[in-house]
Amino acid sequence: MREQFPFFKAHPNLVYLDTAATSQKPQALLDSLQNYYINDNANVHRGLYKLAYDTTEAYESVRQQVADFLHAQSAEEIIFTHGTTDSLNLVASAFGPHAVPTGGRIVVSGAEHHSNFIPWQQLAKRQQATFVVTPVHSDGTVDVPALLAAITPGTNLVAIAQVTNVAGDTLPVAKIVKKAHDMGAFVVVDGAQAVAHMSVDVQALGADFYAFSGHKIYGPTGIGALYGRADLLAKMPPIQFGGEMISEVRDQGSTWADGPIKYEAGTPHIAGVIGMGAALHWFQENVDAAALQVEHELANQLRTALRAIPDLTVYGNDDSLATVSFNLTGIHPHDVATFLDEQQIAIRAGHHCAQPLMARLGIPATVRASFGIYNNQDDVTKLVEAVQAARRYFHGID
Amino acid sequence: MREQFPFFKAHPNLVYLDTAATSQKPQALLDSLQNYYINDNANVHRGLYKLAYDTTEAYESVRQQVADFLHAQSAEEIIFTHGTTDSLNLVASAFGPHAVPTGGRIVVSGAEHHSNFIPWQQLAKRQQATFVVTPVHSDGTVDVPALLAAITPGTNLVAIAQVTNVAGDTLPVAKIVKKAHDMGAFVVVDGAQAVAHMSVDVQALGADFYAFSGHKIYGPTGIGALYGRADLLAKMPPIQFGGEMISEVRDQGSTWADGPIKYEAGTPHIAGVIGMGAALHWFQENVDAAALQVEHELANQLRTALRAIPDLTVYGNDDSLATVSFNLTGIHPHDVATFLDEQQIAIRAGHHCAQPLMARLGIPATVRASFGIYNNQDDVTKLVEAVQAARRYFHGID
Repeated sequence: MREQFPFFKAHPNLVYLDTAATSQKPQALLDSLQNYYINDNANVHRGLYKLAYDTTEAYESVRQQVADFLHAQSAEEIIFTHGTTDSLNLVASAFGPHAVPTGGRIVVSGAEHHSNFIPWQQLAKRQQATFVVTPVHSDGTVDVPALLAAITPGTNLVAIAQVTNVAGDTLPVAKIVKKAHDMGAFVVVDGAQAVAHMSVDVQALGADFYAFSGHKIYGPTGIGALYGRADLLAKMPPIQFGGEMISEVRDQGSTWADGPIKYEAGTPHIAGVIGMGAALHWFQENVDAAALQVEHELANQLRTALRAIPDLTVYGNDDSLATVSFNLTGIHPHDVATFLDEQQIAIRAGHHCAQPLMARLGIPATVRASFGIYNNQDDVTKLVEAVQAARRYFHGID
Repeated sequence: MREQFPFFKAHPNLVYLDTAATSQKPQALLDSLQNYYINDNANVHRGLYKLAYDTTEAYESVRQQVADFLHAQSAEEIIFTHGTTDSLNLVASAFGPHAVPTGGRIVVSGAEHHSNFIPWQQLAKRQQATFVVTPVHSDGTVDVPALLAAITPGTNLVAIAQVTNVAGDTLPVAKIVKKAHDMGAFVVVDGAQAVAHMSVDVQALGADFYAFSGHKIYGPTGIGALYGRADLLAKMPPIQFGGEMISEVRDQGSTWADGPIKYEAGTPHIAGVIGMGAALHWFQENVDAAALQVEHELANQLRTALRAIPDLTVYGNDDSLATVSFNLTGIHPHDVATFLDEQQIAIRAGHHCAQPLMARLGIPATVRASFGIYNNQDDVTKLVEAVQAARRYFHGID
C-alpha cells in the first residue's frame, strides 16, 4: 500500500499521522492530474470541439461515480463544491432559510467542526432561531441520547458529523435521521472524517444532505461534493451566479439551469473533479473492508498503548475510528507536537476547529494522531515511544 | 515558447484557439503540482510540524506574489478564491449590501460576462436598486462615452471588465474609476481576460476590487484571486464560515480572524495556490511585453484576414486584444465550430456567457478564436483557410 504513495519515498523517515487534516496522495492521482493537463485540458460544458466534449464527458462521469460511491439515487443529486466547508455553507445559505423559519430551532452536537457549527449558528442568528448545542461525554464523544432528546417537536434542522474530528466517534446517523424526520426536521451530515474510513450509503442513512472533501480521501485539494436529496435540491435557489448555471439572462432578470449545475457557477475545478474521480476509483480498487479494519486496529492499538502511560488522557473510545486525541497532564499539546516534530512525527495539536468541544472538555487543545491507509505498526510504536519520551522530558523524569 | 507546453506535444496537429476559455499549461506548472503532492503536501495554517510550516510559508508567499503581480499595496489585500466568478460573487454578497443601499443604482456595461452581470443584477433586485446596462457599439465593443455618462450622481457601484470576453476590447478603467469615484461609486473590475494579455496595476487603475482566475493565466483550475482595497475589506463581513477564518467560536456567537483569511473558510486549494504561484512566476520570467505584442499582432492579422472574407462580420477592433469574434452570414456559429473541429481547430461558438451583449447585437452567438502565448502564424493561416472552406461548404460554393 505505502509504495503507492510517492510522498513516503520522498519522506522515508517521516511518521505521518495527520490524515484527518489531509491525506497523502497515491500515484494514481498524480497520474490523473498530469494526464488531464497534458492530454485533456479544455473547459467543460462550453466547447464544441472533440477535446471539450471528451473532457465534459469525463467530468460528468465523476458525478455518477460520486453518486455510486455515496449510494445516491442519481447523479443529479451530486453537486461539485470546493470542499466540505463549501458544501455545508451552500446548504446553510441556500436551503437554510427554507428549512428554518423565523423563530425556528436548530440542533447541532457539541462535537461539531466549526464548518458544521458556525454556518448553523449564523443561520440561527439571521432567522432568530434557537440554536441548541448538545452535550458530550467526558471522553469527547457525542452524548447520543442527549442529542436524540434535543430533537424535539419544532426542531427544523439537525447538523451532525458522521465521524467527529477530535474523538473520532461514529454517530448513529440513521437513528438520528429517523428521530429528526419524525419531528419534521432536516438532517445535514458532515462526512469529511467518514468517507475514507467506512462505507457510506446516504439512502440507508436517510440523510437529506451529505458533504465530503476530496483531499481527505486521497484526492486533490480544492474539490469536494455535496449530496442533496433531489426533491430538496429542486427547492434550493442558487447562491452564486455566473457562467453555465443559467437558462436565460436578460437585462432585468435571469432564469437558472436545472440540476446540480445550477450551483456550479463559473469554470469549475475541472482537474480537481477528474482527480477526485481517479482517487475514488483508486480507493475502491485498493481499499477494502479488511484494509479499513487494519487501520481501525492500529488506532485502537495506539489508544491502548497511550492509556498505559501515566498522566495521559485519551479521548474517544474503541469504537472511534482513525482519529486518536490525547493530552499529557501539565504539558501543552503544542509542546508535545513540537517535541514529536523533532522526532519526525507529524501529528496535529490545537483546538482542531472544534472550540465548542474544547470548551465542554475544559481544555484549550488536544494532541491528535490520525491514521490513513498507509500507516503501519511501526508508526504506532514510534509515536508511543516518542510520547513516553516527551513525558519524561517535560516532567524532568530520567 | 510552445515547447514549454506538453499539451502541444500530445496534440501536435491541434490548432488551439480557445485560451479565453482556458489556457494550456507550461511544464513549470505540472512540475509544481507534482512537487507539491510528492514533497510538500500538508494542510496549511494548522500543523505544528516542519512540513506544515514550510507549506504554509509557501502558500502565504503566493499571496505576496499576487499582490506584487497586481501592484497591490499589500498581501493583506489579496484573497484566494476559486476563480473570477467566485471572487465577483464574494464582493456582491459581502460588500454589495454595504455599497448599494436600498433604492441605489448599479451600472454595468452591456458587454459583461454573466459572472460580472448576474451577481449585480441579483444584488439590485435584493436592494430594490436601479440596474443600468449601458450600450455597446455594433462591433460589440463597449460604448465608453455612454458608460461614463451612465455613471451619474447617485450611482453606488460600477462593474466592468478590463478586457471583454467577446470583442476583446480594453476598457479605460482608470478613467471610468475616476468618474465613478467622483460620483461616490465603487468600481469592481473583472480581470479574467486581462491579466494574461497586459500588465495590470490596480493602484494605477484605482480599482476598488479586481478579480482574476488562475486557469486563464497558465495556472491550475479551481483557483483565483480577489484584490480588495484594504480599507474596504476591513468593512466586509465573511460569507462562508468554518475552519481558520475564526478568532473565537462560542456556542451562541463567533468572532472572525483579521485579514484575507477571514474569507477563506475551510482547507483551501493548497496545490492550486502554490500552482498559481508557479504559473505567475513562469509568466513573469517568460512572457515579456514584446511577446504579448506578438500575440496581439496575431489577433490583428486574423481580424484583417477575416475582414477580407465576404459575408463575414468581425466583432472588436484593432485595439482589441487576444480575442476575435466573428460570424458568417447565414451559417450558425455552432456549425462553423463543428466544421473547424473536423479540421482539428478548437475554437468556441456560443453566447460566451454574454447573453445581454448578444441581445444588443441581435445575434444568438458568435464564433470566437482566442490567443495564448503559444499560438503562431501557422495557427492564423490554418484558421483563415478553414473559415474560407466552411463558407464554401455551407454556401455550396465550389
